[in-house]
Amino acid sequence: MARVVVDVMLKPEILDPQGQAVQRALPRLGFEGISDVRQGKRFELEVDGPVDDTALARIHELAESFLANTVIEDFTVKVEEVAEAGK
Amino acid sequence: MARVVVDVMLKPEILDPQGQAVQRALPRLGFEGISDVRQGKRFELEVDGPVDDTALARIHELAESFLANTVIEDFTVKVEEVAEAGK
Repeated sequence: MARVVVDVMLKPEILDPQGQAVQRALPRLGFEGISDVRQGKRFELEVDGPVDDTALARIHELAESFLANTVIEDFTVKVEEVAEAGK
Repeated sequence: MARVVVDVMLKPEILDPQGQAVQRALPRLGFEGISDVRQGKRFELEVDGPVDDTALARIHELAESFLANTVIEDFTVKVEEVAEAGK
């Protein structure tokens, strides 16, 4: 079983009020030197079977049609090794 | 300027209704073979200056105290190259 991670972030030109709220709060909390914060979503999908090109293409399609709103969001699909068994 | 990514996910033992809702919707939408979905948050922080050990320690502290609720959430801090200038 493999894990595929889909990261969904607002496009750079879209205003991100959540990220801005975090960024503005940082100096108040004593954290300086961070010029920008963007907040997005991370989906971890556990895939049955091998993650071959067909499976990745399906997940790409899934992310595009369902996880991200591509009018305002960009997404990336990454395969991640499931190395957490020893945790 | 460097980008540091903080991923915040619910701990594995915590119920994730958002992820479950996505997972249950997938077969209906024609996507089979995904046995679990977890949804979390991704923060992209643009850091002024070099990301040395001190800066990373500060960001770790920030993530722990402010971005994640460590009672129910795990987080990871990763440095990412800003290679998107050519996009």
